[in-house]
Amino acid sequence: MNALDDVIETLSRLPGIGKKSAARIAHFLLAGDRSLCERIARDVSVLHDRIRPCPRCGAYCEGELCPICADPGRDRRQICVVEQPQDVQTIEAVREYHGLFHVLGGVISPLDGMGPDQLRLQELIARINEGGVEEVIIATNPTVEGDTTALYLQRVLKPLGVSVTRLASGLPVGGDLEYADRLTLARSFRGRSGF
Amino acid sequence: MNALDDVIETLSRLPGIGKKSAARIAHFLLAGDRSLCERIARDVSVLHDRIRPCPRCGAYCEGELCPICADPGRDRRQICVVEQPQDVQTIEAVREYHGLFHVLGGVISPLDGMGPDQLRLQELIARINEGGVEEVIIATNPTVEGDTTALYLQRVLKPLGVSVTRLASGLPVGGDLEYADRLTLARSFRGRSGF
Repeated sequence: MNALDDVIETLSRLPGIGKKSAARIAHFLLAGDRSLCERIARDVSVLHDRIRPCPRCGAYCEGELCPICADPGRDRRQICVVEQPQDVQTIEAVREYHGLFHVLGGVISPLDGMGPDQLRLQELIARINEGGVEEVIIATNPTVEGDTTALYLQRVLKPLGVSVTRLASGLPVGGDLEYADRLTLARSFRGRSGF
Repeated sequence: MNALDDVIETLSRLPGIGKKSAARIAHFLLAGDRSLCERIARDVSVLHDRIRPCPRCGAYCEGELCPICADPGRDRRQICVVEQPQDVQTIEAVREYHGLFHVLGGVISPLDGMGPDQLRLQELIARINEGGVEEVIIATNPTVEGDTTALYLQRVLKPLGVSVTRLASGLPVGGDLEYADRLTLARSFRGRSGF
């Protein structure tokens, strides 16, 4: 059954999908309406043609600029720096932040051959030098690489005369002290705040 | 970001894939090589054109007959009756059974409007009446509907002069008595065997 095995093999290359899930999906597609197959084929094949990085912030965009850079209602005094384009979507879903974004396209990770030169750092400095930016919020992940990158950015951006902040790290809301890992608990002590 | 949202919406219709997994896959596709997208589009779109039910057993097939019905090395004295085409693949993966298959295309389930007439039952009876079949192994799922269907099949097929058997149901190998549900444990008593 080559056509079926092909689909299973192809789907199992996707993140979070093993052989069993891929087989389940393939059988679901085969048992169901062919219009779903056609829809998947169409949507997936136009993805790369229709979406490219926003020339300004590096987030995904379909037009000239991404919807956030193009929105006159966003607060242009704040730039939130994230690692990857999908981080923009994650933060947007929370509806807490109303400024602009800047996608680095990665983090400093010498072991993976990623240095500051591989990041979209010059573009960020250029945006700050254009003026009007008051705060840069660094929202890299709370990992070794993300923290290293945050420290590096703070050193580079501080002299440009902007306030540089970092997202708080600590106990997740609804979490339990008992289940927090040591590093998170230690960081929640260091980052403790008054009432 | 319509193209991205389209992919996420489409992928989240697949079984076992929620909004978050769909978003993760969509971003993976966008960050990765476009050849994977093209491959998915191609493999999924040809699925319905290339695969249809085997006219004999009802399993998926790409040629005249499915590979199992067409294989002269299979034991034609045994027919294993399963609910769905994918059950054939599941049983084949175990390499324990070397006979033929028959796919019912469902189970008797009055609540879902599925009666014996909706199953590929006449085709099974016709295959048995052609002669040469000695044993029909009923491999419907050990659920209420699967058991009902198995009992019904047993009543209908017995008079045709074939031996009708059912897959054993009981404790899973490597399982623990403590974690077995009551019905499974009860059935493992009823189905107990000598050494």
